[in-house]
Amino acid sequence: MAERSSALDRFYSVIPAGGVGSRLWPLSRADAPKFLHDLTGSGQTLLRATWERLAPISGPDRVMVVTGRAHRAAVESQVPELTDPNVVLESEPKDSTAAIGLAAAILRRREPDVIIGSFAADHVIHEPAKFRSAVEQAVIAADAGYIATIGITPNEPAVGFGYIHCGEALAIEGAPDALRVESFVEKPDLETARRYVGEGHHLWNAGMFIARADRLLEEIGATQPELLAGLEELAEAWDDPARRGPVVDRVWPTLVKIAIDYSVAEPAAEAGRLAVIPGRFGWDDVGDFASIAKLHSAGRPANLAILGEHARVLSDSASGIVISTTDRIISLIGVQDIVVVDTPDALLVTTSEHAQRVKSVVDALKLSGRDGVL
Amino acid sequence: MAERSSALDRFYSVIPAGGVGSRLWPLSRADAPKFLHDLTGSGQTLLRATWERLAPISGPDRVMVVTGRAHRAAVESQVPELTDPNVVLESEPKDSTAAIGLAAAILRRREPDVIIGSFAADHVIHEPAKFRSAVEQAVIAADAGYIATIGITPNEPAVGFGYIHCGEALAIEGAPDALRVESFVEKPDLETARRYVGEGHHLWNAGMFIARADRLLEEIGATQPELLAGLEELAEAWDDPARRGPVVDRVWPTLVKIAIDYSVAEPAAEAGRLAVIPGRFGWDDVGDFASIAKLHSAGRPANLAILGEHARVLSDSASGIVISTTDRIISLIGVQDIVVVDTPDALLVTTSEHAQRVKSVVDALKLSGRDGVL
Repeated sequence: MAERSSALDRFYSVIPAGGVGSRLWPLSRADAPKFLHDLTGSGQTLLRATWERLAPISGPDRVMVVTGRAHRAAVESQVPELTDPNVVLESEPKDSTAAIGLAAAILRRREPDVIIGSFAADHVIHEPAKFRSAVEQAVIAADAGYIATIGITPNEPAVGFGYIHCGEALAIEGAPDALRVESFVEKPDLETARRYVGEGHHLWNAGMFIARADRLLEEIGATQPELLAGLEELAEAWDDPARRGPVVDRVWPTLVKIAIDYSVAEPAAEAGRLAVIPGRFGWDDVGDFASIAKLHSAGRPANLAILGEHARVLSDSASGIVISTTDRIISLIGVQDIVVVDTPDALLVTTSEHAQRVKSVVDALKLSGRDGVL
Repeated sequence: MAERSSALDRFYSVIPAGGVGSRLWPLSRADAPKFLHDLTGSGQTLLRATWERLAPISGPDRVMVVTGRAHRAAVESQVPELTDPNVVLESEPKDSTAAIGLAAAILRRREPDVIIGSFAADHVIHEPAKFRSAVEQAVIAADAGYIATIGITPNEPAVGFGYIHCGEALAIEGAPDALRVESFVEKPDLETARRYVGEGHHLWNAGMFIARADRLLEEIGATQPELLAGLEELAEAWDDPARRGPVVDRVWPTLVKIAIDYSVAEPAAEAGRLAVIPGRFGWDDVGDFASIAKLHSAGRPANLAILGEHARVLSDSASGIVISTTDRIISLIGVQDIVVVDTPDALLVTTSEHAQRVKSVVDALKLSGRDGVL
């Protein structure tokens, strides 16, 4: 077990805290993105919960957050434990390859044999012990040279997620559950999703990637050599306060925007270099208000969930969810599966069934120039 | 026709502007009662529309408004034509017999043979010419000694209104449509309402009463002698600025609260002294949000009506009604027959089907001591 603990000692968590979460508008918005909200009613923001899940695994000094400059203060107030070297600020969003790749490049310069694991700042994970066990196996697989991911065992034929098609067992010592990834599959239709769940060879892609930093950068370089060059140039200057600013100003705008699924995961899977650990913990990306409602209904469909520190809700035979960031009196009468999101400048009323269409409203607001509330 | 025009010359309109309109909470509330809102989208408050309907009939100088002290400024701003003698302020609400009876007692002292007609401040009437014609017949019937009312020809078996059971034609010259009222019937169940509509002998009671002031006071005195004595005492001092205040302070609190339907209309009907003119104009008491939605749907059930000067509403396949007194962005996705009422401190979300249950929320707010938003 010497190798196993040695690999874990070299593990570093990376939390890209970027996306706004448009389908959670008007709660989630540019200046208050999804990861800064408590969507579970736990009293913790999703970012804080993510940090608390990862800190025990990699150690609290070995968690890096990559976020936008605008969110620095909010992130630091959520995670006061973060030291300056563990906060990477993006001057503008450049998608996940740049965010995770920059963290990898910076950390590799600090520790050449570091293993990094990237985990979204805005997902919900139950059963942290099972999560930790999956991460540990993924770290072992990563140390063996694989790009590793943790796939989620589906509990329903969801059409909102990409799927991972699993192949043979990899028989990695210390990572008994590791399977080779055959391919990544884009969001399927319902029939296909049902088949996947029935066959048992498919997992949900939760965007968790664990790899040796040098291996990850190698994969990026194989498909995006210019992006890699930019990231290396940034990383080389990063820890020199006098040089960082000018290099960021010059290089950052040139970085290509590409999701790590396309730059790394799919090509690595095709080449047989991608391993997956099936995760058997409860997981939710809380991607829309229907997910939040479901998370809170606890199997009681007639339930009305209420989120919001100062929420004042009166319900007469209503079910669904109310999320309020105001202290207005909100009264619901006879509405079923309703979704009400009440903020000082914007109100959303929809149902669980239609919650995924929130993005259409956001698009309409953008088109009509009403970005002020986005 | 000499008598007819002489009776009309003696006609005075009275508008009791009292009730809050609890079933229209949170739009309608103590400091912004229903009659001060524009519920038709006409640009006029219901009170203003009522005044404009009555002023041409009785003459603009012969319209009296009875309202609460708190609403004086709002009423006068809505109807700047009102002169001081035509504004009667109640120090506290004492129900309709006191409000209308006081107007009758004051006006009779000014003009012993005055005929008054009392019309709610918060109903909607289409076809004002037909309304006027019904009022004119009611004035003739009143001049003949009857307590007259105008009943509304039902266009559906509504269970939300009281009904007037009509009897024989009264053959009053100048009021050819006048019928004797057999009785007043409380709000019926649906089966009974259907029978009423099928038989054609029942009209909706819209609370419009027209009578010679002396006759009306006589009826009040027959059932409520103490109330009449109080009203007479108030009226005797009313037009003397030095005396009014002390008398009001002493007498007003002692007045019994009773609806004019019970103190006058039902006993007069039993005694055969109540006449009804069937009104064939469009009428709506806009008693709840379902009525308002119906008023605005114009027969298109898939319609989304929007009321509110500054309302900013984005709809994706929604139907129903949005009433906003704020300038918040309100987005509705996929909700049908929805009722959304958005005010700065309170929000209501219900459906047309459940709109009549709004009063239960108001009661709950009262019980829990949250009167601030009522």
